[in-house]
Amino acid sequence: MKAIVVDAGEVGEVSKGAAPRRGLKRGLSVVDFLLRIVAALCTLGSALAMGTANETLPFATRFVKFRAEYKNIPTFVFFVTSNSIVCVYLVLSLALSFFHILRITAVKSRVLLAFLDTVMFGLLTTGASAAAAIVYIAHYGNANVNWFPFCQQYNSFCQRISGSVIGSFIAVVLFMILLLLSAISISKH
Amino acid sequence: MKAIVVDAGEVGEVSKGAAPRRGLKRGLSVVDFLLRIVAALCTLGSALAMGTANETLPFATRFVKFRAEYKNIPTFVFFVTSNSIVCVYLVLSLALSFFHILRITAVKSRVLLAFLDTVMFGLLTTGASAAAAIVYIAHYGNANVNWFPFCQQYNSFCQRISGSVIGSFIAVVLFMILLLLSAISISKH
Repeated sequence: MKAIVVDAGEVGEVSKGAAPRRGLKRGLSVVDFLLRIVAALCTLGSALAMGTANETLPFATRFVKFRAEYKNIPTFVFFVTSNSIVCVYLVLSLALSFFHILRITAVKSRVLLAFLDTVMFGLLTTGASAAAAIVYIAHYGNANVNWFPFCQQYNSFCQRISGSVIGSFIAVVLFMILLLLSAISISKH
Repeated sequence: MKAIVVDAGEVGEVSKGAAPRRGLKRGLSVVDFLLRIVAALCTLGSALAMGTANETLPFATRFVKFRAEYKNIPTFVFFVTSNSIVCVYLVLSLALSFFHILRITAVKSRVLLAFLDTVMFGLLTTGASAAAAIVYIAHYGNANVNWFPFCQQYNSFCQRISGSVIGSFIAVVLFMILLLLSAISISKH
């Protein structure tokens, strides 16, 4: 199973042991597939947790009802949107990932997938960290600019959105691993 | 200059035209090097613009001086930190990038660089988008949670920090291009 490379005029790298390399690449592809499923679940959970988070305080004036929803803060709307988009992308990318398990020699489609992953990684990180910045102010406020920490009232709402942001950051870390696996996999073709 | 691959038992990909491929890889490496310099300047500019931004209003009470600085908001401190770290990383990575121009067949170091790029891309995006979320509130406020838009007073401070965030996002886009170039370059070894 060894490839003999006869190279005229140029020193090429002699490929050693094609069989274990094939096994490694298939293994990487399977891990890639599984990580995508986990990351999709993380983003789905985050989007749902944020999207359904709401809390109404048990008191009201005649004109004002004290109610917190994600729609009140544009950054959270962006968070739900970006997580949803990335979740849909991850589900769709499963097809290409499965194709890579079957056709381990495919390279161009791997480069394409790595690029799309990079873009989606950027989108997800943007949404997650923007929401994290808002959640931080919601918890601690900012006395210098008189931003009040609304978590003092809306306790369960804040717990929900904090958990949601954490789920999204887990997906961010998974994306980093996915990109590393892609780079290794592409380098072994 | 053509490589003749004699493959026993396994269908390998016959490499066609090594010379143009070498040229392409060297070209990619040079573009990589130049993009890193531009991205380093962007992050340096952003860190400096944010770090030196301050505005003191032309009136004061006996106890309070109205002064805006980036240190008042923890997210902006993180923004300056992350931009500085990424700037230093980019300058250091120039060495490896230059090595790739000379040694275009190196693969493992390219995979390493791609992974480090991914991590730094994540760090930079986190800092930039967290700051963007705060700048958004600074401009428009949020009536639902009574967060006041302090840009109505601190006009020049806000222009400065907005520009700073934009510079950082330009570096984010450059990182995406860098990662795409890396993937293409690794695939052509």
